[in-house]
Amino acid sequence: VSTVSPADTGLTDTQEQTLQTLKQQALEDDLSYQLIESLTTEVGARLVGSEGEKRSVTWAVNKMKALGFDKVWTEESDAQLWQRGDIEARISSPFPHPVAALALGNSVGTDGKTIEAEVVEFADLAALQAAPANSLNNKIAFVSYKMERHKDGHGYGKAVGARVVGASEAAKKGAVAFIMRSVGTDSNKLAHTGVSRYAEGVKKIPAVAISNPDADLLQNVLGRSQPVIFALSTSASGPSGKTTTIANVIGEVTGARTPEQLVTLGAHLDSWDVGTGAIDDGIGVGITLAAGHYLAGLPTRPDRTLRVILFAAEEVGLLGAKDYVKQHQQEMSQHVIGAEWDFGNGKIYKLEPGVNPEALPAIQSFARHLSSLGVSMASTNSAKGQSDMSALGEAGQPAVNFNPDGSDYFDYHHTRNDTLDKVNAEALKTNTAIYTMFAYFATSTTAEFRRPPQTASRQTQ
Amino acid sequence: VSTVSPADTGLTDTQEQTLQTLKQQALEDDLSYQLIESLTTEVGARLVGSEGEKRSVTWAVNKMKALGFDKVWTEESDAQLWQRGDIEARISSPFPHPVAALALGNSVGTDGKTIEAEVVEFADLAALQAAPANSLNNKIAFVSYKMERHKDGHGYGKAVGARVVGASEAAKKGAVAFIMRSVGTDSNKLAHTGVSRYAEGVKKIPAVAISNPDADLLQNVLGRSQPVIFALSTSASGPSGKTTTIANVIGEVTGARTPEQLVTLGAHLDSWDVGTGAIDDGIGVGITLAAGHYLAGLPTRPDRTLRVILFAAEEVGLLGAKDYVKQHQQEMSQHVIGAEWDFGNGKIYKLEPGVNPEALPAIQSFARHLSSLGVSMASTNSAKGQSDMSALGEAGQPAVNFNPDGSDYFDYHHTRNDTLDKVNAEALKTNTAIYTMFAYFATSTTAEFRRPPQTASRQTQ
Ligand SMILES: [Zn+2]
Ligand SMILES: [Zn+2]
Ligand SMILES: [Zn+2]
Ligand SMILES: [Zn+2]
Repeated sequence: VSTVSPADTGLTDTQEQTLQTLKQQALEDDLSYQLIESLTTEVGARLVGSEGEKRSVTWAVNKMKALGFDKVWTEESDAQLWQRGDIEARISSPFPHPVAALALGNSVGTDGKTIEAEVVEFADLAALQAAPANSLNNKIAFVSYKMERHKDGHGYGKAVGARVVGASEAAKKGAVAFIMRSVGTDSNKLAHTGVSRYAEGVKKIPAVAISNPDADLLQNVLGRSQPVIFALSTSASGPSGKTTTIANVIGEVTGARTPEQLVTLGAHLDSWDVGTGAIDDGIGVGITLAAGHYLAGLPTRPDRTLRVILFAAEEVGLLGAKDYVKQHQQEMSQHVIGAEWDFGNGKIYKLEPGVNPEALPAIQSFARHLSSLGVSMASTNSAKGQSDMSALGEAGQPAVNFNPDGSDYFDYHHTRNDTLDKVNAEALKTNTAIYTMFAYFATSTTAEFRRPPQTASRQTQ
Repeated sequence: VSTVSPADTGLTDTQEQTLQTLKQQALEDDLSYQLIESLTTEVGARLVGSEGEKRSVTWAVNKMKALGFDKVWTEESDAQLWQRGDIEARISSPFPHPVAALALGNSVGTDGKTIEAEVVEFADLAALQAAPANSLNNKIAFVSYKMERHKDGHGYGKAVGARVVGASEAAKKGAVAFIMRSVGTDSNKLAHTGVSRYAEGVKKIPAVAISNPDADLLQNVLGRSQPVIFALSTSASGPSGKTTTIANVIGEVTGARTPEQLVTLGAHLDSWDVGTGAIDDGIGVGITLAAGHYLAGLPTRPDRTLRVILFAAEEVGLLGAKDYVKQHQQEMSQHVIGAEWDFGNGKIYKLEPGVNPEALPAIQSFARHLSSLGVSMASTNSAKGQSDMSALGEAGQPAVNFNPDGSDYFDYHHTRNDTLDKVNAEALKTNTAIYTMFAYFATSTTAEFRRPPQTASRQTQ
């Protein structure tokens, strides 16, 4: 596997030269930054169902057109409407303290009342799940688990379970509300929101994240004196039954020779409502739009079509991506490969493919062009696509994952602090160059990324 | 000046040994941290006039007694009551964005209404002051100056003027409200509060700080499209005319031989209301109480009296310190030297005296005992006392300033982020050791720190 020659990219010499030209262009330009600046300044937060989300669709359509995409369109579908409302949280006894808190996505409210109840702490979700039946009657469950910081972000997986199912697990034991230490690695008095889900047939109780310093404080109070009373009121709407229209925004740079073959770049256009969604996922929007622009600016179109998909409603459950798969079932077999960007700020250090093994030499050869940018290739071939693209991966689309240093991603993730100033402009240039190069390589190479039909299902791999 | 011998500390050999014992004790202990933890957990925010402030006085009296101080008392006086109320701020047009804002101390409110007006940006206070008369009629003045980060914190002085006088300067030109980029070096979506003052005879308009990311955003909006409309409502009370009782809390370790001679250690007990006042100035409270405890734990009392003063109402204008000077006029000449801690988290790297030149050799000799802790001595002799102690310095008390690395102090200063987790426990141990050693040295040395009478006034130095 390590003895392939550079020519194995499946590109012609001229195409190899174009690849280098695109690399230089992207490294010297700040288009992706300007796009993020524009999106966060002129639109801002883009919660599903909000005015900001509606404006972001118009913004994206206009930008794609201005950037030279050949075709631009939207694909609408419906999503549940959830509204945050207001929140007030505090430790009320024995020592009164205000608490920085955010309702989790989908959370119900407190019906115009203040819930005031004793707090019972659990070290993690498993401890909460192990609590005896009725042991939390009229109490507030508090999961204090603290997310670990790791370069690849794997601390998130260990922490996020409580966010998704904690409220229903607490309700099963009789709790009247569920609070948790934010899923985040920072120490700011700003809570991290994110989606939660209610189990069917279980009473829906408010689900709220509190900031890391407040979780520390609550633990310190609990450590010296019981009972500790917590007060919570929120007008979060819960699953309202109302729906709202969401829209994937799609733009193509149409292939010159095999336009029916689709290379996809993805990011999500929606964001949580608390910051301006610069990091999550303004950066993905900026990178993928810039890559499309650079390809559209070439003297001739690449062979295959580049399709940039700005997905709707990722934050509330990959709704736009799932809808895309449904609407594009017929042409899914023509999706030759895809890559998403939804992991923030850090420089890419690893490329992980998930392709037909016969295409690996081409990807390895391509990866060598990235080594001067600090990127090495993983030894595995099991990428399914990040974030939204995982839905397309499940539907059979081969993928490449570009893994950045995510050490600080969860400092800002889903907080008010997700703002433009957090964007690392230098890393962004490098990452934009990498995505641009990938887009050009994948639309131009003779390599076939799709797995042969007999190995295309998950079970046989 | 550089040829003094170690013996010049004015301490006996036994006292020199005690100094080393105290150093080790403080370096190995975490008492000051435990005190900060207790203050921030059991009391929390301590805004003048709040319940927290009242509880902090009880807390401090009880702690001083428990820590072995010989005398503990409070000294009450009156202060203006100011209440923060609520605030809502946003950019309303052309692109709507919520804004993280805090009313500045003393600010008036908006009378139950929302002020909605065009924003006019000024690069700094001088630019605002240079604006023509009536040029801001019905407008909101916005000072966008960004504080610089420096080790010694001198960026604060260049930025804070706008906070103190900006509202009245804006009102003189006709403005209906004053907003400013927070005086702070962080990039969190958390505003920095702090005191402001209204000039007499000038209309009082609301004075509000917005977070650094919001100031960036507002500048980006202003940079592409005018007019920009900002909406502000706040129920801040303004100078209410109501008063509240404040109290300095004072504890003494009574001197064995010359108890009438007073060495003072100071910190302020009050805090802003938004965090728990861990950094500002819980750390000072912890360090000075711990130093008193260590001296009180010695087999014999030092010669002079150590007086620890936890000042009231520093944040709103050194009110407790000014009252202390008034109430102790008669014994001010017996205040032989003082030091304050009110500069947060960093390790001390410099000792700067402000004493009778004849006492300099003793201080230099003492400073050599700190060199293993990373402290060097300044070449100047002009310290007047930090923070509250500057009021005592003005009244003739000699001073030592201990300068820490303040690089990150203004990341947290006067924000919700001023919480326990920000305390650097290792630096705190070192700094506690230094203050303990200073307290013992100053209460034990034969050196006379007070300037001779003929050079005691400021003009002759
Ligand atoms: Zn995302
Ligand atoms: Zn997200
Ligand atoms: Zn202070
Ligand atoms: Zn302060």
